[in-house]
Amino acid sequence: MLERIHNFNAGPAALPLPVLEEIKDSFLNFAGSGMSITEISHRSPWFDSVINDAVERVKRLLKLDDKYHVLFLQGGASMQFCMAPLNFLSDNRSADYVNTGTWSTKAIKEAQIQNKPIKVVASSEDRNFCYIPKDISFNKDAVYVHLTSNNTIKGTQFEILPDTGNVPMVIDMSSDILSRPIEMSKIGMIYAGAQKNIGPSGVCMVIIRQDLLDLSPGNLPSMLNYNTFASKNSMYNTPPCFGIYTIQLVLKWIEETIGGLEKMDALNRKKAGILYDYMDSSDFYKATADKGSRSLMNVTFRLPNEDLEKAFVAKATENKLGGLKGHRSVGGCRASIYNPTTLDAINALVSFMKEFEKKS
Amino acid sequence: MLERIHNFNAGPAALPLPVLEEIKDSFLNFAGSGMSITEISHRSPWFDSVINDAVERVKRLLKLDDKYHVLFLQGGASMQFCMAPLNFLSDNRSADYVNTGTWSTKAIKEAQIQNKPIKVVASSEDRNFCYIPKDISFNKDAVYVHLTSNNTIKGTQFEILPDTGNVPMVIDMSSDILSRPIEMSKIGMIYAGAQKNIGPSGVCMVIIRQDLLDLSPGNLPSMLNYNTFASKNSMYNTPPCFGIYTIQLVLKWIEETIGGLEKMDALNRKKAGILYDYMDSSDFYKATADKGSRSLMNVTFRLPNEDLEKAFVAKATENKLGGLKGHRSVGGCRASIYNPTTLDAINALVSFMKEFEKKS
Repeated sequence: MLERIHNFNAGPAALPLPVLEEIKDSFLNFAGSGMSITEISHRSPWFDSVINDAVERVKRLLKLDDKYHVLFLQGGASMQFCMAPLNFLSDNRSADYVNTGTWSTKAIKEAQIQNKPIKVVASSEDRNFCYIPKDISFNKDAVYVHLTSNNTIKGTQFEILPDTGNVPMVIDMSSDILSRPIEMSKIGMIYAGAQKNIGPSGVCMVIIRQDLLDLSPGNLPSMLNYNTFASKNSMYNTPPCFGIYTIQLVLKWIEETIGGLEKMDALNRKKAGILYDYMDSSDFYKATADKGSRSLMNVTFRLPNEDLEKAFVAKATENKLGGLKGHRSVGGCRASIYNPTTLDAINALVSFMKEFEKKS
Repeated sequence: MLERIHNFNAGPAALPLPVLEEIKDSFLNFAGSGMSITEISHRSPWFDSVINDAVERVKRLLKLDDKYHVLFLQGGASMQFCMAPLNFLSDNRSADYVNTGTWSTKAIKEAQIQNKPIKVVASSEDRNFCYIPKDISFNKDAVYVHLTSNNTIKGTQFEILPDTGNVPMVIDMSSDILSRPIEMSKIGMIYAGAQKNIGPSGVCMVIIRQDLLDLSPGNLPSMLNYNTFASKNSMYNTPPCFGIYTIQLVLKWIEETIGGLEKMDALNRKKAGILYDYMDSSDFYKATADKGSRSLMNVTFRLPNEDLEKAFVAKATENKLGGLKGHRSVGGCRASIYNPTTLDAINALVSFMKEFEKKS
């Protein structure tokens, strides 16, 4: 068996090694059941304890009160782009959207295809989404304000969530969920494809407040109505059991090994800080996002030219540093450094970057 | 580590042991990538080879011509109950539905909640769905005929698919997909939650013919339009990679270890035959489905009374025979014996049944 690499993939992405090892060790016989986690019934006490533990851990980590429901859906964040307007914008009501990149643009498009009268109240498209808009005026009669808290492709992140007054925020946190503590009081819903910070692809975690659940119209297909999932503990139909199990183990790792979200945040700031500090001290590497809008999760950067970028990615791969190519839509380089990425991986990357700069 | 049990779960269900062992062995380092299958990018050559191999194997096993697309979606069969009418029944057109049990009933409900003018052309509800309706009259102007080929809960199965004339069938094959060869010429679409015959929960395989794809209206949300998946090889957004990988390995097992669908069918007939023959020779166990409608996948049966049924399930569990309780909505007992269930498991079950009868 070859050794493992340092994995800077944008998603699916690195998972904590102890989590992978636990899955591997129990894969033929989960919790003494004599079956694999992929073979047990979702109606069994074994799976009940998995999903209930996952829900409780999310509630503890985010300090959620009883108004919030923690759900596990399928279809990724892309399905949420469709479900949020479908559930919350009946009777021709409107919502505000902030456009900070590729995923926000898609969320806007999926509301518009349903003919919902949404308003784009701010955008950073004028400078290719390299910053997070500030001082936004929101509409008081909006049902919700939609944000993408971290922009995987453009490498930007809301440092602080905006003040939306009495309008609840609906936030796509696919790429920074559980990477830091969040003030929940203004948040109506969070959704997050699991495959970056908290698990494998194929599960989307949704945290939804009761008053938003109450907005869903009665004539939605069952699988498109949030209430279907909230009323059945995400088990109206067979859930993605393996994915939920993996998430449970990652949550346990965040709580028990890392020590909670404050410590997770400190580690993530340290990791990103090492990378940005080094780039700021170099004339060779240039971070693409504005200071004050830089993502702690996806560090996007350019080299002096595209040939050097190509050589950088290739040479890094040879050195067991994987996934450093920028998204195909923007080019350049990107180091995705979600929760599971270790300090060792960051240090190995910076060493390599110094070496590469010296030789170029 | 405790030894493994014989697993008769209805779904999620048993998987072939060699498949589980291969997943386990490669779990920290997939195909020499230095990453877990849960950590590799879906845009990588590694995952391309997984999904492309899975698609090619399905095409070979079912002898599909180029009119058919093999897709992997999320949301299970329940999402298909909603998507089929949404895509195929615009402009107030109608479809015929055959009601053979719990899942058909749900499919019908999800079309009706959308106000689609569908017609239920046959039902076996009069006798608690213990048989498959025959000699059904279909409407010539229906866009499709919807069937559930195997009824997991009621233990019935279409022995032969009905003649629907020129109207294409849309078939929920969640519980008998790839358990036998199928004549595809009259089939417009097959869908199947993977978690019974071919994989873990969290993936729904959809096989769709081009002429049905052409029916989707232009104003559907992207994730609800089959064309989104067909035009992007199921990778418009991040697919459920682990599930598709497991399916790929099960398909390989069906092709290379079992030897294809004719042999899979022969083995499945042999397995079910042993169980039904024994029950037919016994006054103690009584199969619940009519002869001629009996499922080769889900063998439902009753004992003389409910106390004995409870004791049977408990004693079986002690003897490492798991999952024999009937669905909570119907009671009784059920042995689900999908593709991965071995002859050994069947023989162990029959031995136990004989022993239990003797002692009761």
